[in-house]
Amino acid sequence: MSWLENSIMAARGEAKGLAGQTFSITEESQGKYHYVYGPYAEPILRVDPGAVVSAETHDAMEGQIKSESDSPSAILNFPFLNPQNGPIFVNGAEKGDCLAVYIRKIVPRGPQPVGTTCIMPEFGGLVGTGDTAILNPPLPEIVKKVEVTPEKGVVWNDKITLPYQPFIGTIGTSPEIEAISSLVPDYYGGNMDLPDVGPGAVIYLPVHAPGALLYLGDCHATQGDGEICGFAIEHPTVTTIQIDLIKNWTFRWPRLETEGLIMTIGSGRPMEDAARIAYRELVRWMAADYGYDELDAYMLLTQAGKLRVGNMVDPKYTLGASVSKTLLG
Amino acid sequence: MSWLENSIMAARGEAKGLAGQTFSITEESQGKYHYVYGPYAEPILRVDPGAVVSAETHDAMEGQIKSESDSPSAILNFPFLNPQNGPIFVNGAEKGDCLAVYIRKIVPRGPQPVGTTCIMPEFGGLVGTGDTAILNPPLPEIVKKVEVTPEKGVVWNDKITLPYQPFIGTIGTSPEIEAISSLVPDYYGGNMDLPDVGPGAVIYLPVHAPGALLYLGDCHATQGDGEICGFAIEHPTVTTIQIDLIKNWTFRWPRLETEGLIMTIGSGRPMEDAARIAYRELVRWMAADYGYDELDAYMLLTQAGKLRVGNMVDPKYTLGASVSKTLLG
Amino acid sequence: MSWLENSIMAARGEAKGLAGQTFSITEESQGKYHYVYGPYAEPILRVDPGAVVSAETHDAMEGQIKSESDSPSAILNFPFLNPQNGPIFVNGAEKGDCLAVYIRKIVPRGPQPVGTTCIMPEFGGLVGTGDTAILNPPLPEIVKKVEVTPEKGVVWNDKITLPYQPFIGTIGTSPEIEAISSLVPDYYGGNMDLPDVGPGAVIYLPVHAPGALLYLGDCHATQGDGEICGFAIEHPTVTTIQIDLIKNWTFRWPRLETEGLIMTIGSGRPMEDAARIAYRELVRWMAADYGYDELDAYMLLTQAGKLRVGNMVDPKYTLGASVSKTLLG
Amino acid sequence: MSWLENSIMAARGEAKGLAGQTFSITEESQGKYHYVYGPYAEPILRVDPGAVVSAETHDAMEGQIKSESDSPSAILNFPFLNPQNGPIFVNGAEKGDCLAVYIRKIVPRGPQPVGTTCIMPEFGGLVGTGDTAILNPPLPEIVKKVEVTPEKGVVWNDKITLPYQPFIGTIGTSPEIEAISSLVPDYYGGNMDLPDVGPGAVIYLPVHAPGALLYLGDCHATQGDGEICGFAIEHPTVTTIQIDLIKNWTFRWPRLETEGLIMTIGSGRPMEDAARIAYRELVRWMAADYGYDELDAYMLLTQAGKLRVGNMVDPKYTLGASVSKTLLG
Repeated sequence: MSWLENSIMAARGEAKGLAGQTFSITEESQGKYHYVYGPYAEPILRVDPGAVVSAETHDAMEGQIKSESDSPSAILNFPFLNPQNGPIFVNGAEKGDCLAVYIRKIVPRGPQPVGTTCIMPEFGGLVGTGDTAILNPPLPEIVKKVEVTPEKGVVWNDKITLPYQPFIGTIGTSPEIEAISSLVPDYYGGNMDLPDVGPGAVIYLPVHAPGALLYLGDCHATQGDGEICGFAIEHPTVTTIQIDLIKNWTFRWPRLETEGLIMTIGSGRPMEDAARIAYRELVRWMAADYGYDELDAYMLLTQAGKLRVGNMVDPKYTLGASVSKTLLG
Repeated sequence: MSWLENSIMAARGEAKGLAGQTFSITEESQGKYHYVYGPYAEPILRVDPGAVVSAETHDAMEGQIKSESDSPSAILNFPFLNPQNGPIFVNGAEKGDCLAVYIRKIVPRGPQPVGTTCIMPEFGGLVGTGDTAILNPPLPEIVKKVEVTPEKGVVWNDKITLPYQPFIGTIGTSPEIEAISSLVPDYYGGNMDLPDVGPGAVIYLPVHAPGALLYLGDCHATQGDGEICGFAIEHPTVTTIQIDLIKNWTFRWPRLETEGLIMTIGSGRPMEDAARIAYRELVRWMAADYGYDELDAYMLLTQAGKLRVGNMVDPKYTLGASVSKTLLG
Repeated sequence: MSWLENSIMAARGEAKGLAGQTFSITEESQGKYHYVYGPYAEPILRVDPGAVVSAETHDAMEGQIKSESDSPSAILNFPFLNPQNGPIFVNGAEKGDCLAVYIRKIVPRGPQPVGTTCIMPEFGGLVGTGDTAILNPPLPEIVKKVEVTPEKGVVWNDKITLPYQPFIGTIGTSPEIEAISSLVPDYYGGNMDLPDVGPGAVIYLPVHAPGALLYLGDCHATQGDGEICGFAIEHPTVTTIQIDLIKNWTFRWPRLETEGLIMTIGSGRPMEDAARIAYRELVRWMAADYGYDELDAYMLLTQAGKLRVGNMVDPKYTLGASVSKTLLG
Repeated sequence: MSWLENSIMAARGEAKGLAGQTFSITEESQGKYHYVYGPYAEPILRVDPGAVVSAETHDAMEGQIKSESDSPSAILNFPFLNPQNGPIFVNGAEKGDCLAVYIRKIVPRGPQPVGTTCIMPEFGGLVGTGDTAILNPPLPEIVKKVEVTPEKGVVWNDKITLPYQPFIGTIGTSPEIEAISSLVPDYYGGNMDLPDVGPGAVIYLPVHAPGALLYLGDCHATQGDGEICGFAIEHPTVTTIQIDLIKNWTFRWPRLETEGLIMTIGSGRPMEDAARIAYRELVRWMAADYGYDELDAYMLLTQAGKLRVGNMVDPKYTLGASVSKTLLG
């Protein structure tokens, strides 16, 4: 028995958090991957709530960085970056609803070394970028390939191996009429690069377009807070999710639940705006669903709220604000 | 004879800055207005370089705020805001080219009072917003309708009349595969809300999609620096532009030219990033086209550069950095 | 035996991390508390490295908020806020050295309810402030008094009790010639409000003035990430520290060590600048003392670095970047 | 007859805006220059309202950058930067009052080339800095010396001469108990680097310490918006000011008046906070002294307010928000 039985997904989902039909998205069945989150692409799959979907994801560079002698800036070609599986049309999903996505499993796929990280000009948290535009010379380009297995973990070098702690870097629903680069995180999810979005968690995504149109991709084998150089351990995977639908649960920003906490996710610039969004959403959630007075929640989170910095390198920075379920009564 | 004859548009444009065929876009011929800048809408017009186009623009609220007793927050419905004319397909325009748009004339249209400004919750520079998310109570909603004529100006009240200094609040080309809300300013133009984009100026816009796909709308009768409450004097107009095409002039952010200056336009958050983008683009332009060493340009702009704050209320803030042509040799 | 024996303080300190003479600072012996970090106040104590000092700290409101019916905005009077014990002159400390402060113990003092949190106009992370200046009306003022004991913890209400996890909110050395409000965190420490600065940790502070001139105060009984309403559980304490001196260890921003990690602390606005400072300092530390190539450290922290948001309410925001000692070889 | 006769200084000043006794501060009579704004230095002059004071100011580098082959980073030694004249004790000035300083004249002094600008690592708006901390390599250091005379202007090179448009880069009163680096602009004035603070303007500075304790220095021969490389045309001068005192005019941030406008000055980070401060102060001033409803002022400034970016390189950025006196009735 899993905590999922006590989740919001189980309590409010159309499929009651139970697994239904299973589906598989292979590279072949996906065909063209997508570089925007939007309503203009044809669904590759139509499913009912409860569907369990396994998808063959690409890494964020679509596998183009093959060796440590490659030059990312020569190979990577905006806006054709961060390829996404989907969109998946969820039957019955309408604007104002919420898609619940339980992340069941992530495993690497493909020949080793399967993991890649890079340093690339004009991208990252400790360098000038296209937005924080400066005149300093760039750092040298570096590509590092690492072996990644669930058993051994991420083999950084002879001395250092990091645990395999995979998560989905980019996941979300389609905006209503916008089609936004899969490099961007925003109100519909997208490129949040938040390590909490991993196996065992449920992410709740607001629905804006008919069928929700779920996209996902960009799995990371592990990542530190902030994803500071801009490239986590990027790797292709088979990622398995279970989809449910909560009717008429309307909110602005993605939410997340694990066995121990609830979290709200904000993306913005400057970073304090992402934190403000996340914490305000959490205050409002505690008031709407857990009987808190808003100002009492505000004061309690001052003592017991947690902030996780997902990324500080994407077009918007992403932070998660969370509170332990033990404080929710 | 106009300064235009000595402009970059005249020197490098396919039509040599000369006026060609004239076109008119009425509300009727426009049909559906657009709320995103993207490549997924059918062009309403196909023109050659030199085309002179008059467009009936709506105000940013699509004329829905009809009286001072209306409630903007009840009426306005994201994402269906800031309606745009277009897209106009410019024959011959390809990725890597530059569209030159000379703004010839802006005149109000429709019954008086034709101008509208508002205070609306969660929008503006001196209030909490969806991004700068706070718990303070909102300001009261206010709608103010004002008479606007080119002759008299903007009649604020019995004592104060402001000059009519119209400009195009939102103008740009289509991204390659993204479709971005017309509320956003970014690398392709969009909702810059920069008063320099008015009659007598040429704006240079990078081309990303075949035909460039020019959109425009959201004209303001006058506006202060920063558009601080979020609503300039919004008004419907007939706006006349002249379009030219410069092949193989590739740059990242919009540029502008008037008789006296050249300007680069950056949009970003926090505001210093918009300023950095604008100034770096100006340094690079001076180096590429005016014989400056980059660091010499950097030092000279420190003494003689000008910054104009367009908006500090949109999803990205917009600033223009400029230098007098007298310093360009 | 404590981890301290294996600390940098033990390895490099003049007193080898060993406890020396003990001192006590009472309210009476302190006399006037201080509201600036600067070199213009007379030391209240002169000690050798190794000194163990117990100080009676006030809460940040100097005990003036006595009841839940008090009005913080009427009582609190800038700049006479956040009273500090000290300065303590450390014999032998000179500019370019580093003060090591091991935090031994924090216990509440005074009559219950000893803990205080508040909501006050123009202060906090989810409201407009003097810096993020807006026109919205303020939230109501609220004072909440809570019982705090090491045994029971922080008694929030009938249902919720939080663990007692005390730390020093404000600690630092004197700038060389500046005297800066004790509300500010900066390169010398100050009002960092970072929960890691608690019992069992060593904080390393750069020395700028002869004798280092150590100040401390503002202890919190517990605090969430960001200290979002601006007032943690503020409480008066007896705080016991052990001071050591590391000659000729020169760096710009405070550093911290626990049994399991090393951390660098940055303060700035916007929040991403605090994160950048913290991470750059950590990269440099790993390169200087642990044999890392800078860019390799940058890539490794991308996978394994941790960010803690201390405060997002003070004049500068404070973040700590850390890495596990298991990755330092 | 000057506009000064119609100024606020004339209307409300103790000396009615009239010139009184004259004083001179030479390098010799100044003796030690100051690097902090604070109450811990002895006044070098005590004057009554009406005093006309001429001061020999140093440039921001205290004349240490003597040739184009000098290395600023090797010579300049924080915190001993930006030397200030003063403090001047103004008889009768008390906390809650306002010091009015009319800037009469600025002339260069010393041997030509008297003007200096530089590019220096870790300082400037288009480079990484100590706050926007990055790993990119620095730009090369550059020193440029230029001839500056009121008659000819600033001789940039053979082709370019900029007009002499001098102003006071750093001016302010003392904080009450803080002593803050003269590199910082804040609520008391300081290193605002705002070109409006030039001859013909009156700056109004809040008083926090007995006698106000006026400091000034850091005059610029000309400067662009943002002072983007960090060094305007720095030059030593004889600067003449006329001081008046307005009793019981209490406000938070510096204000400025010229013949045509009133301006409020905000300093902060990120840049939008400086803009918010400036505009909110202007709204409040229009409401307090010019009969405006606050929200009406907010809407009018949206149409007619002007923003000037002073600096975007100092520890806080400085912006001035202004409105034409023609709109004040």
